[in-house]
Amino acid sequence: MSILIRGGTVVTGEQELRADVLCDGGTIKAVGPGLDAPAGTTVIDAGGMFVMPGGIDPHTHMELPFMGTVASDDFFTGTAAGLAGGTTTIIDFVIPGPNESLVAAYKTWRERAQKAAGDYSFHVAVTWWSDQVSDEMGVLTRDHGVNSFKHFMAYKNAIMVDDGVLLHSFARAQELGAIPTVHAENGEAVFHLQRQLLAQGITGPEGHPLSRPPEVEGEAATRAIAIANLLGAPVYIVHVSTEQATAAITRARAAGVRAYGEVLAQHLVIDESVYRNPDWATAAAHVMSPPFRPKHHQDALWAGLAAGQLQTTATDHCAFCAPQKAAGKDNFTMIPNGTAGIEDRMSVLWHHGVRTGKLTRSEFVRVTSTNTAQIFNIFPRKGAVAVGADADLVVWDPAGTRTISAKTHHQNVDFNVFEGMEVTGVARHTISGGKLVWTDGDLRAVRGAGKYVERPCFPSVSQAQAIRNERNRPTGVARMPATAVTP
Amino acid sequence: MSILIRGGTVVTGEQELRADVLCDGGTIKAVGPGLDAPAGTTVIDAGGMFVMPGGIDPHTHMELPFMGTVASDDFFTGTAAGLAGGTTTIIDFVIPGPNESLVAAYKTWRERAQKAAGDYSFHVAVTWWSDQVSDEMGVLTRDHGVNSFKHFMAYKNAIMVDDGVLLHSFARAQELGAIPTVHAENGEAVFHLQRQLLAQGITGPEGHPLSRPPEVEGEAATRAIAIANLLGAPVYIVHVSTEQATAAITRARAAGVRAYGEVLAQHLVIDESVYRNPDWATAAAHVMSPPFRPKHHQDALWAGLAAGQLQTTATDHCAFCAPQKAAGKDNFTMIPNGTAGIEDRMSVLWHHGVRTGKLTRSEFVRVTSTNTAQIFNIFPRKGAVAVGADADLVVWDPAGTRTISAKTHHQNVDFNVFEGMEVTGVARHTISGGKLVWTDGDLRAVRGAGKYVERPCFPSVSQAQAIRNERNRPTGVARMPATAVTP
Amino acid sequence: MSILIRGGTVVTGEQELRADVLCDGGTIKAVGPGLDAPAGTTVIDAGGMFVMPGGIDPHTHMELPFMGTVASDDFFTGTAAGLAGGTTTIIDFVIPGPNESLVAAYKTWRERAQKAAGDYSFHVAVTWWSDQVSDEMGVLTRDHGVNSFKHFMAYKNAIMVDDGVLLHSFARAQELGAIPTVHAENGEAVFHLQRQLLAQGITGPEGHPLSRPPEVEGEAATRAIAIANLLGAPVYIVHVSTEQATAAITRARAAGVRAYGEVLAQHLVIDESVYRNPDWATAAAHVMSPPFRPKHHQDALWAGLAAGQLQTTATDHCAFCAPQKAAGKDNFTMIPNGTAGIEDRMSVLWHHGVRTGKLTRSEFVRVTSTNTAQIFNIFPRKGAVAVGADADLVVWDPAGTRTISAKTHHQNVDFNVFEGMEVTGVARHTISGGKLVWTDGDLRAVRGAGKYVERPCFPSVSQAQAIRNERNRPTGVARMPATAVTP
Amino acid sequence: MSILIRGGTVVTGEQELRADVLCDGGTIKAVGPGLDAPAGTTVIDAGGMFVMPGGIDPHTHMELPFMGTVASDDFFTGTAAGLAGGTTTIIDFVIPGPNESLVAAYKTWRERAQKAAGDYSFHVAVTWWSDQVSDEMGVLTRDHGVNSFKHFMAYKNAIMVDDGVLLHSFARAQELGAIPTVHAENGEAVFHLQRQLLAQGITGPEGHPLSRPPEVEGEAATRAIAIANLLGAPVYIVHVSTEQATAAITRARAAGVRAYGEVLAQHLVIDESVYRNPDWATAAAHVMSPPFRPKHHQDALWAGLAAGQLQTTATDHCAFCAPQKAAGKDNFTMIPNGTAGIEDRMSVLWHHGVRTGKLTRSEFVRVTSTNTAQIFNIFPRKGAVAVGADADLVVWDPAGTRTISAKTHHQNVDFNVFEGMEVTGVARHTISGGKLVWTDGDLRAVRGAGKYVERPCFPSVSQAQAIRNERNRPTGVARMPATAVTP
Repeated sequence: MSILIRGGTVVTGEQELRADVLCDGGTIKAVGPGLDAPAGTTVIDAGGMFVMPGGIDPHTHMELPFMGTVASDDFFTGTAAGLAGGTTTIIDFVIPGPNESLVAAYKTWRERAQKAAGDYSFHVAVTWWSDQVSDEMGVLTRDHGVNSFKHFMAYKNAIMVDDGVLLHSFARAQELGAIPTVHAENGEAVFHLQRQLLAQGITGPEGHPLSRPPEVEGEAATRAIAIANLLGAPVYIVHVSTEQATAAITRARAAGVRAYGEVLAQHLVIDESVYRNPDWATAAAHVMSPPFRPKHHQDALWAGLAAGQLQTTATDHCAFCAPQKAAGKDNFTMIPNGTAGIEDRMSVLWHHGVRTGKLTRSEFVRVTSTNTAQIFNIFPRKGAVAVGADADLVVWDPAGTRTISAKTHHQNVDFNVFEGMEVTGVARHTISGGKLVWTDGDLRAVRGAGKYVERPCFPSVSQAQAIRNERNRPTGVARMPATAVTP
Repeated sequence: MSILIRGGTVVTGEQELRADVLCDGGTIKAVGPGLDAPAGTTVIDAGGMFVMPGGIDPHTHMELPFMGTVASDDFFTGTAAGLAGGTTTIIDFVIPGPNESLVAAYKTWRERAQKAAGDYSFHVAVTWWSDQVSDEMGVLTRDHGVNSFKHFMAYKNAIMVDDGVLLHSFARAQELGAIPTVHAENGEAVFHLQRQLLAQGITGPEGHPLSRPPEVEGEAATRAIAIANLLGAPVYIVHVSTEQATAAITRARAAGVRAYGEVLAQHLVIDESVYRNPDWATAAAHVMSPPFRPKHHQDALWAGLAAGQLQTTATDHCAFCAPQKAAGKDNFTMIPNGTAGIEDRMSVLWHHGVRTGKLTRSEFVRVTSTNTAQIFNIFPRKGAVAVGADADLVVWDPAGTRTISAKTHHQNVDFNVFEGMEVTGVARHTISGGKLVWTDGDLRAVRGAGKYVERPCFPSVSQAQAIRNERNRPTGVARMPATAVTP
Repeated sequence: MSILIRGGTVVTGEQELRADVLCDGGTIKAVGPGLDAPAGTTVIDAGGMFVMPGGIDPHTHMELPFMGTVASDDFFTGTAAGLAGGTTTIIDFVIPGPNESLVAAYKTWRERAQKAAGDYSFHVAVTWWSDQVSDEMGVLTRDHGVNSFKHFMAYKNAIMVDDGVLLHSFARAQELGAIPTVHAENGEAVFHLQRQLLAQGITGPEGHPLSRPPEVEGEAATRAIAIANLLGAPVYIVHVSTEQATAAITRARAAGVRAYGEVLAQHLVIDESVYRNPDWATAAAHVMSPPFRPKHHQDALWAGLAAGQLQTTATDHCAFCAPQKAAGKDNFTMIPNGTAGIEDRMSVLWHHGVRTGKLTRSEFVRVTSTNTAQIFNIFPRKGAVAVGADADLVVWDPAGTRTISAKTHHQNVDFNVFEGMEVTGVARHTISGGKLVWTDGDLRAVRGAGKYVERPCFPSVSQAQAIRNERNRPTGVARMPATAVTP
Repeated sequence: MSILIRGGTVVTGEQELRADVLCDGGTIKAVGPGLDAPAGTTVIDAGGMFVMPGGIDPHTHMELPFMGTVASDDFFTGTAAGLAGGTTTIIDFVIPGPNESLVAAYKTWRERAQKAAGDYSFHVAVTWWSDQVSDEMGVLTRDHGVNSFKHFMAYKNAIMVDDGVLLHSFARAQELGAIPTVHAENGEAVFHLQRQLLAQGITGPEGHPLSRPPEVEGEAATRAIAIANLLGAPVYIVHVSTEQATAAITRARAAGVRAYGEVLAQHLVIDESVYRNPDWATAAAHVMSPPFRPKHHQDALWAGLAAGQLQTTATDHCAFCAPQKAAGKDNFTMIPNGTAGIEDRMSVLWHHGVRTGKLTRSEFVRVTSTNTAQIFNIFPRKGAVAVGADADLVVWDPAGTRTISAKTHHQNVDFNVFEGMEVTGVARHTISGGKLVWTDGDLRAVRGAGKYVERPCFPSVSQAQAIRNERNRPTGVARMPATAVTP
């Protein structure tokens, strides 16, 4: 079955052009004006609309076992909801426990993901260190299409790693041509503040942001970047939510470091006042880490995206329902951390970013798909509207409106952090793998239709860091090997 | 005549791919693997080579009347030298004197440029202010394809304008959808320091950098950006040469301002020690403004390009021969300011940037053509390897080497600031307007073959600045009109 | 008549100690525990109180002719109000018009100030440039005890000077061992925005802050510092009100520049919402330049004072009554700029600074008197509690409270920008020139009791800037003369 | 025995004045012009000289057991050498091993220090954590005059502590009114780089700076400050050697944090080229941590001192002779870390700081004694020239010269990192505890003459941090207790 998108304006990370797009056999076959529709072709009228690459959400946690429960959106419901919002690919996380085999965990997650309706890939977390971990990182990159490894600087007594592990793992990733990513919060500080707050009798959700103030993130981001820089490795900071972390990335880049930052749609528009909602369930529903911040941090995030200092947007989609959240009724540290958002990211970005003039349409495409595809080395298969690319597309209606609500959303969760937000700019049609899966409000997601996306390591090796390192080096002393990938 | 470039790796600002490129009738007709060569097609073997958009040099001064003489490279010799180096388009400057009609000056420059061998366009300088100037800015944008206006903050008693003119002109440019650009040096300070140095008996070229220290540039860049920001206008700083100006741009962008910076190839690799050369003629040959800087500034410039905080590279190509430079024999302030470089920019960038790992190949393309084309609104006609784009291409031999020298260069000037530099990475073939104009060392530039490139104003208007301005605004007060272009 | 202050805690910029203070003949005769009271001595019980140097307000405009009217507090009423608030010395401004003799203007102001109840000194403004101005700067420093010159970067078409004048005047001040000071706002930008706002029909006080946004100050501060740095001169920025200007000073100091910043008590606690007061008179009463700012700027100012990056506090005391303010009824640009505050500065600083822990008591002393005395070279005659110092003291009651109000204040103006503010921490007794002039609410100010304070130029010359300048200097080239004062 | 210093210029942190100084019974009895000499008074002619507080070196390690050996200067020889250089007080370190009692260690060090010729005090290191440690911190502050606790972020597998310990200890220090100090280097990173370098065969002293690059310090300083800020505690960073750490302190202070920085005389003038000295012993003699840095870092340190962002100077005096250094002959990580300097600090600071104009004389006093005394709460007993202060003074000869050399110095070590440096500005006479202990080259140090200096905790509690913390706090939630000392 082929699809012809006719009469729209194609928007890529580089340009806009009036062109039709023909998809067939899962890929894009032609992009150009006045294309003919072969017999049997479904024709989509994109008049007045923008045709863009399907969104990539590089940070989701479908059916994640976490804090004693399991995230309520599974790979099917979660990816299906993504399709309804214009997102056609996710990069989820394999999170082995300490002492667990990375490859075994990877296989567990692959198994779970069989049911996905959209394409998916996996970052793999390094939560401990040993020769086995080092070896398995090699196996995963060589045999399983993994080119990124995640590290948690928070969650003490669970999956947190210390600087020693970061050094080992970043160095190994660099050697393999993979990119290290980090959840940047100082876990020791969080643990200390949590205990202090509980001791003071602060047990409600209002304690959550108090236990993770902005400095906790700024510090950890600075540290992760410093470690990467010492090794000549690139580094990607997930869910940057503060001025401090944004500034750390900006400073590093100005010094020649290949540091990248990801922003969640939620942090761009929601502020910390939510934790003071007198309704416990509502406040608890917003508990995620990093928490929502005082409003002025949002300015830094938007400017960072526009200036190219922050490159990607995501959701950290990790859905928990009210009964799950209730586990922390008497102790905010027991509330499962996570909010949903995969369905709404692109509309939120468009409404609050493009319509206000903070982002151009091309910048919208870059931060919702193109940059992500480039950093994680799946461009132009993903993130492009070009002949040969996967037929993952969204036909965007800039005049379409909807009111976000848990009552109507497709996510398998009873709460929506954007509840009641009226957005202008919606996915009118979504094409995934060449199939029309969302059209005019009709979700045609197919369980298991999603494919696993292998992400090769970077073939070329940057010498930028080596050069930089060399600057402070005594003459005649051999330089340290530097095999940094610089996506 | 059609040309098929076969077997190379196409590099764009976004990606690399193995593909052939077919040109015909002045534009690119096909990009893809295994293209057939129509009868009569010239086939170029690009095996082991990179096929990239022809370079765009957004800052040249061909046959400029300046400081009592005229730049020695005219539009033919200068653009021809550019072709030999892989640069296929220039944006030169129309510089009316105070009280001179902008349109009349524009016509004078168009006349001069008839002889160009490569494509060309014009920024127009605003060197004074009146209703006539304001009107003519409208005429130039509407009728003559001008979308950028240049302002000199230096050159007191000549073409320098004060902040009042900047405010008028930036506001007018914004209204028209054009982008203001500035030469950022505090001209009053330069004038003061020049007189002070001469009074101290410092009359040689060593006085040149002393009269224009880095702060002089940092201050002016900060001021120009502040003025643009007040008006909600974008701004483009030409020839950024210092840490200070780079930092000013970075800070502004982090605050949401649409500020852009251009770097000259010369500033990336030459430092201020040249002014202390005991040979007067050699020292004088390096006199240009801003001057060369202490070496550490180069790190900031390279990092700025890699981080996307500085967007373009240029040469400020303005060639003066030794007898011309000699006008300042007894007074460094009389030395005609300018150096050549159009022929060498791309090799210098490749050798010192790509080969060292400071820039990826895609970044090289961005900073030598793509970003420039986007900022000045001629993308994807220029700066792209895509069907429909102008057939302006360079086939780049990453293994080719040459030693830069005035003895062998094609520029019409007796000196080369890169003299003796051995570079690896050269333009093997250059195609301009679909014609093979440089191939294996054979320059086939044709006088008058270049075409004038109209640059339309930006159709869409950004509201980003308006939003930002609104932040500090009393409720209920109408916001100032903001029609900033944000390329 | 002698006075013994008994039983208090003396606080200086360096320390706190329990000590009595004996004053006689206009100076301090003894500081120590258990001092005897000579016969006839007035004994003041300072139990539970702090004995501190009388405040110095380095920025006042008594009976200033400005914008078609004259400030309502004259030298008597204004200094008397200062005494009631613990401020015993002012540095006012001589402001010659363009083309007016500096010496003649100085004499006019000296004449006016004869009536002062407290001590006074004068900065002299440089509002134009000529050989005469240069000569008169010499005369003023040599014969009249002037060691500081003020420059207005704002007030176009009135007293604004351009960068050329700044360069001349800063260089001359440096040569004389005097310190240049600046009102840092870009006057061209203010003028442009004023016209733009009026054209849009924005004529009320809400237009005032819109015409002078924070960037206008940040830009000018950056420029003034850059100019000073080029010349190796120190520079003092009056009434710093923004994050931007604070950051400019901090950056400069981190680069070795001797830059200083003054903060007004008003800017520390009042924000720009006052301009949106529906009552025109109330809004207009707050019109001063720079205007009040969004609240977050206050954090930067407090931190700057605590960190030592901003050194002094002042009031820019310039009182205009409602009928005077009414001149701008139809046009905010005609509202006389100025607010009062000399009586309240110290209580506001104590209440909002010391009581909240933002400032220590020693820091309070530094920023209300000691630093000012040092920068303007009248320490330890002023700003100290030490034998031999002028007997200008305040006995501070940290538990005393008052509610600030125009109804009760001693300032000759019908409005108080701090109206209704309850402050804890008040001047219980003030001693000026050895006389008890304010005691338990009884103001005993004497017309004409104040003395003119000569401020000698700095005898020593700093080479710091010279060293710095030299860094970028060609070997073998004579360095520029650098005679910067570095107080 | 009394001493009268006659005819000099007294310099304090605040001012200069012509005054005599009379000492008797160990304290200063009078400061003033034309003092009479009681019978039996030793009169010192200070004509043409400066009379200043004796230097305080807040960072020494006398007879420290470290890395398998013991520092060669003991408390007698080390303090005696200090007297010869004008330094009259040291604050040394008690360093208990992990699991060792802090109080027991303190007593061991007190015992060792009995032999000191000058006054001394102790910081106590926290190298592990338990309830016992917490309790003993209380004992030390209450009973033993300790008001500062040191933390090593480096030296993995020895005395390094992790962030958890920092949080516990900083919080406890804050509760007690004591100030936490840190050695800021990321010990995990150092360990990683050391192993990497050794594996590459880099075993010589040139490996030392490679294993501790500037980022290693910048990161740790940023982290320590962030942790202090979270707790509302002040923090003091010892031996700041980099732009990065200086910038971290500056940024923190601009945000209202009470962060302090100490600079070593060595880092101000020696750069990392010393590690490339072909003579192993010479290179090894310079091994200390943090290592010497590329030259440009020195500019940041000098500017930081002048701007008040860095407050104190020290030496980290820790002397090891060549045979001791030889322990690392085959492995740079085994070279005992440490250099000497107590005798030379003040001359080096004067020569390179005051004479060049980087520091004024008052600033010299502040950074060599006054600020240190204030931060560690022994002002004005130390760090002042005032009646009642300890008679610890140096009579400084600004015209005196000497050539620094191990051949002539009084330090008990066979090497001097300043070897051959000719300095102008020397201690002509030193008075310690009212005794003339160094006069015209005659060292009269007396074993055991030094006294232990108790340093009380800060009685007052700052609420600054509490206020700041409160800013981001939900309404109605109790604020965390903040008892930060803010010296």
